[in-house]
Amino acid sequence: MMGLPPDDRGFTLGDGLFETVLARDGALVGVAAHLDRLAAGCATLGLPPPDRVEAEALMRRALAQTELGAAARAAVRLTLTAGSGGRGLERPEPVTPRLVATAAPAPRPLAPARLVTSSIRRNDRSPTARLKTLAYLDNVLARREARAAGADEALMLNTRGAAASAAAANIFWLEGEVLVTPALDCGALAGTMRAQVIASAARLGVPLRETAAGAERLAAADALFLTNALIGVRQVCDLDGRSFAPHRLAERLSAEVDP
Amino acid sequence: MMGLPPDDRGFTLGDGLFETVLARDGALVGVAAHLDRLAAGCATLGLPPPDRVEAEALMRRALAQTELGAAARAAVRLTLTAGSGGRGLERPEPVTPRLVATAAPAPRPLAPARLVTSSIRRNDRSPTARLKTLAYLDNVLARREARAAGADEALMLNTRGAAASAAAANIFWLEGEVLVTPALDCGALAGTMRAQVIASAARLGVPLRETAAGAERLAAADALFLTNALIGVRQVCDLDGRSFAPHRLAERLSAEVDP
Repeated sequence: MMGLPPDDRGFTLGDGLFETVLARDGALVGVAAHLDRLAAGCATLGLPPPDRVEAEALMRRALAQTELGAAARAAVRLTLTAGSGGRGLERPEPVTPRLVATAAPAPRPLAPARLVTSSIRRNDRSPTARLKTLAYLDNVLARREARAAGADEALMLNTRGAAASAAAANIFWLEGEVLVTPALDCGALAGTMRAQVIASAARLGVPLRETAAGAERLAAADALFLTNALIGVRQVCDLDGRSFAPHRLAERLSAEVDP
Repeated sequence: MMGLPPDDRGFTLGDGLFETVLARDGALVGVAAHLDRLAAGCATLGLPPPDRVEAEALMRRALAQTELGAAARAAVRLTLTAGSGGRGLERPEPVTPRLVATAAPAPRPLAPARLVTSSIRRNDRSPTARLKTLAYLDNVLARREARAAGADEALMLNTRGAAASAAAANIFWLEGEVLVTPALDCGALAGTMRAQVIASAARLGVPLRETAAGAERLAAADALFLTNALIGVRQVCDLDGRSFAPHRLAERLSAEVDP
């Protein structure tokens, strides 16, 4: 893998997007949904979308080169940046995006997660809150805060006080038999596993609400779980000191989406 | 300049900080203030600060290597990242930061700036809003929006509707003979030129207020100007279609800080 030039706008300004794709037994899981989301993010950022064949080939090569192709579970990261050049904040005309793929082992966390609410708010007043952009520092800091508090992951509220997501996962909860998750305009990432869980709930006949909900709704929930492409569904056992028991519907959804 | 590894956390997550230092006739202007701010930012992000001698030597080398050492005006960018490694959002223990310096020509814009208010809000609910972090994408998009509207720069409000800054500059305005600028907790970057202008105002006996102010205060101002280390003081001639005339106090402050 060649080094990146230090004038890459992903490096200098976070001007780009990424996808983290699960590779299971050498196969890229749900790669079409990831490339769809990447293309949608490019449209929002005003970047040309990548060639899908080239992007997939790059990911397969990263998997092969790191000798993780035969691994039971690996994470393949595809990064697209606005490339090099431009003046300060302004991109060059035309932009020549840069695509980079890397692969790493991805053991699945089996224990339920302990969450704490972060002091750092997710900026629902920016279109980037719904995208998997390279400007991920707030989430890094939220996770860091959570780990310092002895938890595994951070719950991030948005600037209006509504739940948005975890630092590296979407969040769902159960109110009786109703499944609830933050609406995308709350600053939630449009997660590929979020979409799968929503589709699974529809198949199972589970009513679902996408909504703006304050932290008190989560504290009063019957169960809480996290989702992302690598972990699938991960139950939450504790939020800010309040305990949650395992829930059969979370288990059922986990089996449905089985990453 | 060697290439960056694709697992650098500045590249993958925006996990780092930067400084843009003016080099005038081969000398780094105000480099101590820049390195002070970088060290303060490192403390907020939980990163070890760089060695100041090494950082300055790197910047001088970048200036020499790009043959800009003799240029009247160049911009030297110093980037510090959380280095390579870690697992997902979580940094490795210990962190080994990476320092990179680059240099580019920096012509001074002489014409007054036309501003439009951005639809993208600055996230005053994160400590990163006061820092010059690598997660700069919101500002890239705000500038892009401004350029698409035929303006030079974007005014960014925070999530509570108060003025925070321009996309790549701090903002000041005059209310009669009183100089006003957004307080840092509005999500304003702690600009080195902002600090210089504040110090100059004190020397000149100009009263100054750091405050939270809505867009209507700026629209009603007697004059508006932008500041950063590369441009010094740059007057604003238009904000969202409202015109502003050049102002003698802005000119006086520009001469005082003369970058």
